[in-house]
Amino acid sequence: MTTGTIYGVGLGPGCQDLMSVRADRLIRQATHIAYFRKRGRRGHARGIVEGMLNRQVIELAMEYPVTTEIPFEDPRYNQCLAKFYADCVAQLSEISAAGEDVVVLCEGDPFFYGSFMHLYQRLRDKVPVAVVPGITGMSAAWTATRQPMTWGDDVMTVLMGTLPEEALVQRIAETDALVVMKIGRNLAKLRRALQRAGREDQAWLVEYAAMAEERVMPFSEAGDSAPYFSILLIHGNGRRP
Amino acid sequence: MTTGTIYGVGLGPGCQDLMSVRADRLIRQATHIAYFRKRGRRGHARGIVEGMLNRQVIELAMEYPVTTEIPFEDPRYNQCLAKFYADCVAQLSEISAAGEDVVVLCEGDPFFYGSFMHLYQRLRDKVPVAVVPGITGMSAAWTATRQPMTWGDDVMTVLMGTLPEEALVQRIAETDALVVMKIGRNLAKLRRALQRAGREDQAWLVEYAAMAEERVMPFSEAGDSAPYFSILLIHGNGRRP
Repeated sequence: MTTGTIYGVGLGPGCQDLMSVRADRLIRQATHIAYFRKRGRRGHARGIVEGMLNRQVIELAMEYPVTTEIPFEDPRYNQCLAKFYADCVAQLSEISAAGEDVVVLCEGDPFFYGSFMHLYQRLRDKVPVAVVPGITGMSAAWTATRQPMTWGDDVMTVLMGTLPEEALVQRIAETDALVVMKIGRNLAKLRRALQRAGREDQAWLVEYAAMAEERVMPFSEAGDSAPYFSILLIHGNGRRP
Repeated sequence: MTTGTIYGVGLGPGCQDLMSVRADRLIRQATHIAYFRKRGRRGHARGIVEGMLNRQVIELAMEYPVTTEIPFEDPRYNQCLAKFYADCVAQLSEISAAGEDVVVLCEGDPFFYGSFMHLYQRLRDKVPVAVVPGITGMSAAWTATRQPMTWGDDVMTVLMGTLPEEALVQRIAETDALVVMKIGRNLAKLRRALQRAGREDQAWLVEYAAMAEERVMPFSEAGDSAPYFSILLIHGNGRRP
């Protein structure tokens, strides 16, 4: 019996026809799919593939442990997540050992700030694993602004809103084009950082890029919080004939 | 008669099944396609869609003017390109005015260092234009290394090898994850910059990512030049449970 392959498949930004042809084919033919979700939710990745799945498909929902009571800095936080990932890896390996392929649904591009990477690092030396890249959320976001992102020699920087304010100010001031993800509760800090870097008026906020609820606005019109699927952009403005 | 739409369609990294489902459909149904190419060449974008086109499709090859005799800094260089783009825009607008849609084939993602942006800026206020994002070459490159690119709070910086050495050194030293494109003749300068930043041993070179000729190597094993489709990467190494 052959060992099955575990496919980490990039779904792209969240719209079915922005998935790659390879991802589309793997998902429609899958006998086993797996995806992360919060307990009690359907799961965003699972939602994206609604209507595409084979009727007989076997689903493995990998439900994040509840960690809200454990502070992020507490070593128990990492222990809890590490145990969760180990359990997921055991379940996926079992399917592979039984000779079946599994498609793991990954939002965006699997290797770009993706959750699948935690499984990948634990699986890669034991089981056949293949990764299918996807269109990133940031590509969908800059496309939604209807304005090109990077020109000529522009430097582009990708930052997480979770960074300290000082780091944000410096990096925002020093780049041409900018992408900020993980905004959520960091929005007020991010606004201060943009103002201190003198660039608030150049920034755009894109919510739910490429999804039904897509919204594009100048950052100055954003409120005090932003949904999870929000990306802040400053377009580059390099050399152009 | 309705005006036709000009579609700037991201082809992704260069492998047909890494195109989005939307791009695949637009290209197969196209009555008119357009693409850039060097004079005397078939054109890389055109090569990617080989075998996908409708038999009756009308092709517009937009051939770059020969600029090798004009130094890059000479104002005639920009004048020459500006005239070329204006001609392309006139031809595309004519097709649109005749009520026909045109699919412009764009390598990678159209708004990420893409040539189509020069046409887009000239067309957007006059003609219906739609852009389909694509998987970037850098996503294909980091996927090819079989190693996740960015974790947790990693900062990712995208640089062009055409930047001055001092700028490269500083930016390479200050980022977590790194992508460098436009390497070609800048390879020796880039090697010096990596060495001065103390990071040469962390760098990978990926040639022709996702294409038949794909090659992945530690940057230290790279020669003195690299093909046009080369991407240098340093993986991030952020917080992970």
